[in-house]
Amino acid sequence: MNSKFIVIEGLEGAGKTSAHAVVVETLREFGIDDIVFTREPGGTPLAEKLRTLIKQGVAEEKLTDKAELLMLYAARVQLVENVIRPALARGAWVVGDRHDLSSQAYQGGGRGMDPQLMASLRDTVLGNFRPDLTLYLDIPPDLGLKRARQRGELDRIEQESLAFFERTRARYQQLAAADNSIVTVDASRGLEEVNADIRRVLRDWLQRLTGRGE
Amino acid sequence: MNSKFIVIEGLEGAGKTSAHAVVVETLREFGIDDIVFTREPGGTPLAEKLRTLIKQGVAEEKLTDKAELLMLYAARVQLVENVIRPALARGAWVVGDRHDLSSQAYQGGGRGMDPQLMASLRDTVLGNFRPDLTLYLDIPPDLGLKRARQRGELDRIEQESLAFFERTRARYQQLAAADNSIVTVDASRGLEEVNADIRRVLRDWLQRLTGRGE
Repeated sequence: MNSKFIVIEGLEGAGKTSAHAVVVETLREFGIDDIVFTREPGGTPLAEKLRTLIKQGVAEEKLTDKAELLMLYAARVQLVENVIRPALARGAWVVGDRHDLSSQAYQGGGRGMDPQLMASLRDTVLGNFRPDLTLYLDIPPDLGLKRARQRGELDRIEQESLAFFERTRARYQQLAAADNSIVTVDASRGLEEVNADIRRVLRDWLQRLTGRGE
Repeated sequence: MNSKFIVIEGLEGAGKTSAHAVVVETLREFGIDDIVFTREPGGTPLAEKLRTLIKQGVAEEKLTDKAELLMLYAARVQLVENVIRPALARGAWVVGDRHDLSSQAYQGGGRGMDPQLMASLRDTVLGNFRPDLTLYLDIPPDLGLKRARQRGELDRIEQESLAFFERTRARYQQLAAADNSIVTVDASRGLEEVNADIRRVLRDWLQRLTGRGE
C-alpha cells in the first residue's frame, strides 16, 4: 500500500487522543509500522512556537482573527513541507491530530471568517494537498468541554463561548457531509463503542485500499 | 490636515533611520507633533515575536517562503489593526520603517513568489489600506550591504545573495514607477544630499495637502 495521511478531527474533548491509539493499533494489524504522528498547530520547532503564540496569545494584545489564521497556515505549511510530505515520500504513514479542516471549522465556522478568504488562503498555501482519510469525532460542545475541563486549564481558544463551538461543530458537520474522504464518528457515546467504530471504519477503508492494490 | 501614514522603504543600508529623523523634523515644521513610529516586521508585542522568528529562524528548520510570507502578514495585520489604524483615528500621524511594499519587493521580487498569491494575500489581509506617501530610498545593493555590514552582524535575510537584493531592488523600482504615492529618492549619494531631497519631497507634498485643505 502507498503511504497515506490520516487525520483525526473534532472539538475539544471529542477523544482525539484515544482515537489516535486505535488508529495506530489498527494500522499495525495491516502491517503498517512506520507511522509518523503530527499535531496541529505545531509539529515542527517553528510551528510549536507559533502554537504557543496562538494558544496563549501575548499579554494585553488582541490577537486578530486574521493574524490567528495566518499563523495557523504558517505553522501548517512548515509541517506539511518539512514533516508530512517528506514522511509520505519515504513511505511512512502520517496520522495527524487536526489539520486544515480544523481551520475551516474553527476560523471559518466558529469565528465566521469570510469563506472566500479561507478558500483562497488554503488554495494558495496548500495547493491540492489533502488528507487521504479524515475521522471526524462528532460531539456536542457542552459534553466535549466538560471532558476537556476535566483535563485541566483551558487555553485561549478553549475559553470561547458555547455558541462559538456550536458554530464550529455545525461547520464540521456540513463539511463532513460534503466530502467523501471525511467519515463522521459519533463520539458522544462510551469510549468502547467509539473505539469499535473507529476500528471498523479504518479496517473497511484499509481493506478497500488493499483490494484496489494501493 | 487629516492624519496620514508615511512609509520609508528601501534595501538594507539605504538610510531609513536617518530618513526617519528628517521626516519627523519636517512634519514638526508643519506643526505636526503627534507622530507614531512603527517598524516592520514588528511594532506590537506579538509582531515583535514574529519578527524574531522571521529574522533569526529556528535552528535546523528550513523556514519556507510561504510561512515567511504568512508570518509577515500576521505581524502586519496586528500592527495595522492594533497600532496604525487607532493612531490615525485619534489624529496622530504614523511614520513607518517598512510596510507592505517590502513584502512585494523582497518576497515578490527577491524570492520570486507568485504575484497572484502576493496580490490575493495583500487584498484579503489589508483590504484597501495603503500608505498615503512612501519614500523609497533607492540604492545599489552592494553599496547598501557595505553600509549595513558596518553596523554589525547580518541577520537571516541580510545574508541573502547579491542577486536576491538585485531582484528586490528591481521590483522596488518597478512598483515605484507604477504608483504615484511612491517617491523615489536616490540614496546612493551623501547623507546631506539625500536628506535635502527627502525634506524637499515631503515639504512639497505637505504644502499640496495644505493647499487642498486636507
